[in-house]
Amino acid sequence: MAAPRTVEQRITDSRNRLEHDVDAWVATTSPDRPWLIPLSFLWHDDRLLLATSASSATAVNIGQVPRVRVALGGVRDVAIIEGDADLAPSGAMSIAEVEAYTTKHSSDPRTWADTVIYVAPLRVQAWREENEIAGRTIMRNGVWASSR
Amino acid sequence: MAAPRTVEQRITDSRNRLEHDVDAWVATTSPDRPWLIPLSFLWHDDRLLLATSASSATAVNIGQVPRVRVALGGVRDVAIIEGDADLAPSGAMSIAEVEAYTTKHSSDPRTWADTVIYVAPLRVQAWREENEIAGRTIMRNGVWASSR
Repeated sequence: MAAPRTVEQRITDSRNRLEHDVDAWVATTSPDRPWLIPLSFLWHDDRLLLATSASSATAVNIGQVPRVRVALGGVRDVAIIEGDADLAPSGAMSIAEVEAYTTKHSSDPRTWADTVIYVAPLRVQAWREENEIAGRTIMRNGVWASSR
Repeated sequence: MAAPRTVEQRITDSRNRLEHDVDAWVATTSPDRPWLIPLSFLWHDDRLLLATSASSATAVNIGQVPRVRVALGGVRDVAIIEGDADLAPSGAMSIAEVEAYTTKHSSDPRTWADTVIYVAPLRVQAWREENEIAGRTIMRNGVWASSR
């Protein structure tokens, strides 16, 4: 098992994955069941941006319960983002958002998705193995731990 | 993009991952928020078995809302299991369960977890890329599609 990373290193690694990872596991909830699905994402202006259909379980759930939990990457290199999600029509995306999304994913989301989900992170946790469980919370109340 | 797999191949692949994958993403819910965490699992007697603490958010949530959604592996090789979960004391595990878990994970869960979660799958979906979205449901109402 590798030595545990410092908080600063975990923030660097997690920000790097927010920039470069393509898809994420997105957990939402309705009153009687959880929902979990992989969606492509963009990290833009310190928020996650995900495109989907207004009729998808994910968007319908967010309309009822805004809290989401998003996991990047592998089960042994965990980065979990918790935050409240906002829904908006994809047609209302800014030009910068459309350009950044299209550059990253080679696809203009407005051509296939009527809705975008914005997630402003409140809490981020990152760990690899058991020896990183301590110190796993690298953002609290929307503030990266290193900047406190 | 590879050619889409047949339903039979997806069932074979998914059963293989149920046997051999180590960890899974487990989504549960409380009334006001989803929970999502990676847990080690065992596939035994056609059920998922996961060990945890009775005080964990996952176990507490299942006590209130039994429906869970469990995802294996990568965001581009998806296997999602939906089912209702039961909780039991880890001390009530059968000898066969303890042996199978210990063999797979090199750890007797009774030494560190007071609770086990059993998930009997009701629905399983498996897909890799967009061309496998059709035909992704490989178990319905607890029955593998090939055996219908």
